[in-house]
Amino acid sequence: MADLGILGAGSWGIALATVLASNGHKVKVWSIIEDEVEMLRTHHEHKTKLPGVKLSDDITYTSNIEEAIVGKEMVVFAVPSSFIRSTAHSAAPYVAEGQLLVNVAKGIEESTLMPMVDIIEQEINQAVVGVLSGPSHAEEVGRALPTTVVAGAKKKATAEKIQSYFMNAVFRVYTSPDVLGIELGGSLKNVIALAAGMADGMGFGDNTKAALITRGIAEITALGIKMGAKAETLSGLSGIGDLIVTCASVHSRNRKAGVLMGQGKSRQEAMDEVQMVVEGVYSAKAALALGKKYQVELPITEEVNRVLFENVSAKDGVQNLMMREKKAESDKLCWKND
Amino acid sequence: MADLGILGAGSWGIALATVLASNGHKVKVWSIIEDEVEMLRTHHEHKTKLPGVKLSDDITYTSNIEEAIVGKEMVVFAVPSSFIRSTAHSAAPYVAEGQLLVNVAKGIEESTLMPMVDIIEQEINQAVVGVLSGPSHAEEVGRALPTTVVAGAKKKATAEKIQSYFMNAVFRVYTSPDVLGIELGGSLKNVIALAAGMADGMGFGDNTKAALITRGIAEITALGIKMGAKAETLSGLSGIGDLIVTCASVHSRNRKAGVLMGQGKSRQEAMDEVQMVVEGVYSAKAALALGKKYQVELPITEEVNRVLFENVSAKDGVQNLMMREKKAESDKLCWKND
Repeated sequence: MADLGILGAGSWGIALATVLASNGHKVKVWSIIEDEVEMLRTHHEHKTKLPGVKLSDDITYTSNIEEAIVGKEMVVFAVPSSFIRSTAHSAAPYVAEGQLLVNVAKGIEESTLMPMVDIIEQEINQAVVGVLSGPSHAEEVGRALPTTVVAGAKKKATAEKIQSYFMNAVFRVYTSPDVLGIELGGSLKNVIALAAGMADGMGFGDNTKAALITRGIAEITALGIKMGAKAETLSGLSGIGDLIVTCASVHSRNRKAGVLMGQGKSRQEAMDEVQMVVEGVYSAKAALALGKKYQVELPITEEVNRVLFENVSAKDGVQNLMMREKKAESDKLCWKND
Repeated sequence: MADLGILGAGSWGIALATVLASNGHKVKVWSIIEDEVEMLRTHHEHKTKLPGVKLSDDITYTSNIEEAIVGKEMVVFAVPSSFIRSTAHSAAPYVAEGQLLVNVAKGIEESTLMPMVDIIEQEINQAVVGVLSGPSHAEEVGRALPTTVVAGAKKKATAEKIQSYFMNAVFRVYTSPDVLGIELGGSLKNVIALAAGMADGMGFGDNTKAALITRGIAEITALGIKMGAKAETLSGLSGIGDLIVTCASVHSRNRKAGVLMGQGKSRQEAMDEVQMVVEGVYSAKAALALGKKYQVELPITEEVNRVLFENVSAKDGVQNLMMREKKAESDKLCWKND
């Protein structure tokens, strides 16, 4: 049984703490918010972010980041993506040479276009950094509903170590060498979720949504491959799997913001009504920038950006997508005889 | 504007007739059922299978199969998969050398393990046969909701011809050379839809369903590649796209039968309650046979077969899947350094 640390006490950090504790590990969860630490210590439950999930006594809490890092066999980075760099910067002095860190945040840094693992490696160059991602609503993981994810790392032994800490009868972990693919899938899906939400908001059906999901993952895959990721990953749990969960969810803020825009609201009205950060709005910009940088055509991402930032209506956006020139489904597949 | 024929006046045949007619084509629909032809002629509506969708006067009806074939620039095969061979056999004498036929039925013939296009080619060897498939509930196509599909044929010009007849502002058609991949995706998805339904019936959440869909398409892809299909196709509209639509649908008989079994009913009880043919039950057998023939491991298909035919409970089936040995996500991706 191992001594493990988790940085971040949001719903995902806490849900992962329950998985690790149920596997018999000792888990120390760090939050920068003193009141949150007190609440967790007092109630053994996160009253606002994961209500109803009772937390085992093997999980302890601290607001001192050092205590969640030093001597821990694995430290999970579960803060929001916009706080990954600052958290990694604060954590760096306490991380030992070769210590295992695992990123579970999803995002691309807008100013640098870097995914999270790269940021952590840049800030803490003595660490070994892996990633864990997949279709996994925290609420369902907290309730021990069967869930599958993928653990990625540059070395097989690292990925298998992450797998062995997390895996159990309701939390199945696959391994993969494709760290970049795993990160891109988790980050770029929110742009497609916005588009799927818009289609729902316009009253379109399952056909339209399946089209956006399928063509959406196709363009994410085209971009990913150009960046060095693998098609298999984007067809896998952290790609299409995570996208499916997000587009089906009534909880997803990205999908919900899309629904409101599909109903005719402006981006600002939609964001005001959702009242939380809509990551897809920022990821849409980052995706567009990546598409330009790597010269990959991203029709859905481009239309989402037009709807978000150029006053194109969601209806016209969909129409533009449907009426693009006639195409082959994949430019990788060729006819032999023509 | 072309003269076109459709064999089969079920919901999908009629929905496709509306697409072709809205593109300005003359469409002749054949049904073997005299009463159905009369109803369509009288009401310009299929009262039971596509109620509420008014049919244009450019669509005419016949119970004489010859009239839907002779002189038609394209003939669509839209009968249920179990009637494809007999219909092709009846159609054969009227098909001209090089005439274009398009299969839109989904299934694998149990006794021969042949997909539908192969059957049509075998029965009518003077024809040029293509396929059209994708995430497309007939009800939504009938209501002109945006839908995308893929047209496959051995020659590019054939696929593009099919594309040009069908494509319009709400029905987007991509082309592909991978006929086999398109057919396998449409046929084998029903097995995974049964599994997804079982998970829903057991009260599991979106994580479990996304896992079954993602790992389901992974095993269909592994089998398809062994048979000569392309991974890109199974990651596309006729693969994952169609699977997503089926697993999300409250109308899918396959998903519904799965839900009932997930709630503890036997296969027979579930099939009695659904009261229609549950294709996935037969496809599950065919998929298992294909897996054996091509020596591909199909864990979800195998568990579905155990639940269907060996009295394993759905709960134990899911448990067996979750507790398989620890694995890499894709055996195509390798670590460089280990």
